[in-house]
Amino acid sequence: MSYYWMKGNTLKVPATLFKKNRDRLVAELKKKVDGQWTVLLQGGREKLRYNTDCDDLPFRQESYFFWTFGVHESEFFGAIDVDTGKSVLFVPKLDPSYAIWDGKINDENFFKTKYEVDEVHFNDGDSIAALLKQHLKAEKLLLLKADNTDSGNVLEVPSFKDVQSFKLDDKILYPVMAELRVFKTDEELQVMRYASLIASEAHKAAMKHIKPGLYEYQLESIFRHTSYYTGGCRHLAYTCIAASGCNSSILHYGHANAPNDRQVKDGDMCLFDMGPEYCCYASDVTTSFPANGKFTDKQKIIYNAVLKANREVLKQAKPGVRWTDMHILSERVILEDLKAAGLVQGDVNEMVKNRIGAVFMPHGLGHFLGLDTHDVGGYLGDATPRASEPGLKSLRTTRTLQERMVITIEPGCYFVDTLLDAALADPVKSKFLVKEKIDQFRGSGGVRIEDDVIIWAGENENMSRVPRTVDEIEAFMAQK
Amino acid sequence: MSYYWMKGNTLKVPATLFKKNRDRLVAELKKKVDGQWTVLLQGGREKLRYNTDCDDLPFRQESYFFWTFGVHESEFFGAIDVDTGKSVLFVPKLDPSYAIWDGKINDENFFKTKYEVDEVHFNDGDSIAALLKQHLKAEKLLLLKADNTDSGNVLEVPSFKDVQSFKLDDKILYPVMAELRVFKTDEELQVMRYASLIASEAHKAAMKHIKPGLYEYQLESIFRHTSYYTGGCRHLAYTCIAASGCNSSILHYGHANAPNDRQVKDGDMCLFDMGPEYCCYASDVTTSFPANGKFTDKQKIIYNAVLKANREVLKQAKPGVRWTDMHILSERVILEDLKAAGLVQGDVNEMVKNRIGAVFMPHGLGHFLGLDTHDVGGYLGDATPRASEPGLKSLRTTRTLQERMVITIEPGCYFVDTLLDAALADPVKSKFLVKEKIDQFRGSGGVRIEDDVIIWAGENENMSRVPRTVDEIEAFMAQK
Repeated sequence: MSYYWMKGNTLKVPATLFKKNRDRLVAELKKKVDGQWTVLLQGGREKLRYNTDCDDLPFRQESYFFWTFGVHESEFFGAIDVDTGKSVLFVPKLDPSYAIWDGKINDENFFKTKYEVDEVHFNDGDSIAALLKQHLKAEKLLLLKADNTDSGNVLEVPSFKDVQSFKLDDKILYPVMAELRVFKTDEELQVMRYASLIASEAHKAAMKHIKPGLYEYQLESIFRHTSYYTGGCRHLAYTCIAASGCNSSILHYGHANAPNDRQVKDGDMCLFDMGPEYCCYASDVTTSFPANGKFTDKQKIIYNAVLKANREVLKQAKPGVRWTDMHILSERVILEDLKAAGLVQGDVNEMVKNRIGAVFMPHGLGHFLGLDTHDVGGYLGDATPRASEPGLKSLRTTRTLQERMVITIEPGCYFVDTLLDAALADPVKSKFLVKEKIDQFRGSGGVRIEDDVIIWAGENENMSRVPRTVDEIEAFMAQK
Repeated sequence: MSYYWMKGNTLKVPATLFKKNRDRLVAELKKKVDGQWTVLLQGGREKLRYNTDCDDLPFRQESYFFWTFGVHESEFFGAIDVDTGKSVLFVPKLDPSYAIWDGKINDENFFKTKYEVDEVHFNDGDSIAALLKQHLKAEKLLLLKADNTDSGNVLEVPSFKDVQSFKLDDKILYPVMAELRVFKTDEELQVMRYASLIASEAHKAAMKHIKPGLYEYQLESIFRHTSYYTGGCRHLAYTCIAASGCNSSILHYGHANAPNDRQVKDGDMCLFDMGPEYCCYASDVTTSFPANGKFTDKQKIIYNAVLKANREVLKQAKPGVRWTDMHILSERVILEDLKAAGLVQGDVNEMVKNRIGAVFMPHGLGHFLGLDTHDVGGYLGDATPRASEPGLKSLRTTRTLQERMVITIEPGCYFVDTLLDAALADPVKSKFLVKEKIDQFRGSGGVRIEDDVIIWAGENENMSRVPRTVDEIEAFMAQK
């Protein structure tokens, strides 16, 4: 049995995980096409930094290809015969100098064992068409042309010499594969539990280490180090957001123009949205906590409102429930608490209708999680079209929940000047806002509480394990 | 005065560094073209992971653009009027939603102050041509089309609407800019000293932390953490090579197919080739040391041979000396020691002629270092054409050294089975090799000692500060 494994105490991921995905793919395709078709997928290629010969990061496989074959190396092709399910990997033929610069040159058998496929053949870069005809008697190819509903970008079909000598289809494969990726197998869930666990441990390390006077990026560094050193996670699932104070209201803080370089101050709330990936499976966890380990009363109001929303959604996000309704639910819970604290006024139903929720939470409640951080399939299935209203338009899925979906539950409440000013200038919206009270919270940033959750018919499974209540956080941070 | 600065104890890099580069560029261009030309450069664009909406790493600027303007944000254009030297940045016009997701939207004045340019204008994505005509009266544009002699890849000319309405030249700029980048200013050297210092501290942290039983990537993680936490270096200059035991003979170990995942064993030699970058300036340092802190006699033979070569080159690599001759010098020093130890036999001059040096050191002696790890210009100036012989063909420059060049000095000695077997099977080469003795070293990996050096007419300046002699290393590693 072959594994991906970073050794030590890290998780062994069996190659059979991907075999099962291939079996699911074949079973699904058999419902749609005859057995004369062959699936052909192209793996990712190494990307260098501009025109140099250095890469910015070690190669990371393209997610559809990885889901199907679990291959970590670049420049592979993979094929599956729909009729027999026979799986074949085409491995780049390496130059003998590879042995000097990059390591051992392995034979076909090495890859056959490593990836548990039926056949492996070397490809000299130009022989894919011939190999497909020779080893799979392929005449009709199913190619992947994958939309991405978050980025709007398209993964283009494989390109290789003589591709036109086949009958081609690039419509069938995408919805089938994307839909299969939405529902995680037991084997995939094991990897995702591990990734979330490592994320949790790394968040806890940052919480333990923090003290006013440090810089945000030093906490990012603690997080990355813990993820890699103890969890074997070399890659992050996304750029770390290590926001303190007012920066915690910048939803995607931490990018190159806002590079986690503020000094953490006594009295700050922190919002750390960070997650490593293991074996390409993502985690995505946000912790919010006071830099000095002790919540102020004002901080408690906002934090507890968001936590209540997080917990309520965790409870109610059951199979058959539409995600859009969960988004509204989280707005409602937060608004009720803000009303109790005197920041908003009037009828909460009216507030929801007038999109007051989005003044405080402009992003969507959560997104599918898998090989991609914002995983695929959010607008397939029974999804309703993307809304145009504030908040709702940012939802990355509008589907009805089902078992084995993995989704983030990440309500938030922020004090964003541009949003508050616009709402206060709006004759309808301003009626719900208590300006003097809100002004007391401006500049304090925001709170987000994000968990990685598996939807089950019974109790949902929260894979993130970090201190969450005010008491838990204060007790945890006090144990230095 | 504006700075790039990661706060705390990290280095302040003044915006005037880039102003000076622009002045040098204008002065040089004035020797070549009339004053009616305008330089137009295009900054880098954010690259997402495949078709997703996530980036693998925070944006890192393209090096030519960075050298000229010091801009850290993506999607800028920059122009310089050759006649007046007037410098203008064209900043992408941001959507108002940026304020919610990514942070404050700054005005022209913010960027004018931050980057100390003469003018800043917003570009809505389509207005570069009009802006050039309006603000620079531009009619003739010098565009950058930059070859890279290491990768063979080309940085393509800027693309924008109506580019054809100008008279264009893409030949003049590249050799001028590349040649200027070869010679570092005082301001650039300050940044490079800092990057090498941080690299040195991070290497020392790994040396202190190592013990048999750890995994190679855990030492990589210590290195990365030290670079970022204490040095503010978010990016690495290249993928970390954290090789132990036999892996230290794989020159580019550490990539995705060989991801630093071996367990370090008692008795191993380690070879760690790792370097962070600060403000886009690279460091590139290799340490070799025994995992358990104590050299064996056999390890000392190889280590001392390589160290002698490193030190001898450091002394002799003076202005006027050709780098190719330094490569040969390093081979000669190593071969003499190997001969004294009985691994090779015969006349060292004959060995050099028969490329025996390249059996033990298949790579080049070193390369220019700057904004790129393998910095530009290695085959400009008085370079002799790339050689075809083993070892020499891997040289990234063949130029005569001059003051203010920054170059790595990185001799090595490795036991690579494929190279040894080929040499032993060669009737001429095998005469120089003592098989039984060499066989005792097989599987032990290799040694590389790499420093980052500024060439001066007086004493050369070694920017790397790590324990280097056997005694220094053993003493340093003993202080746990």
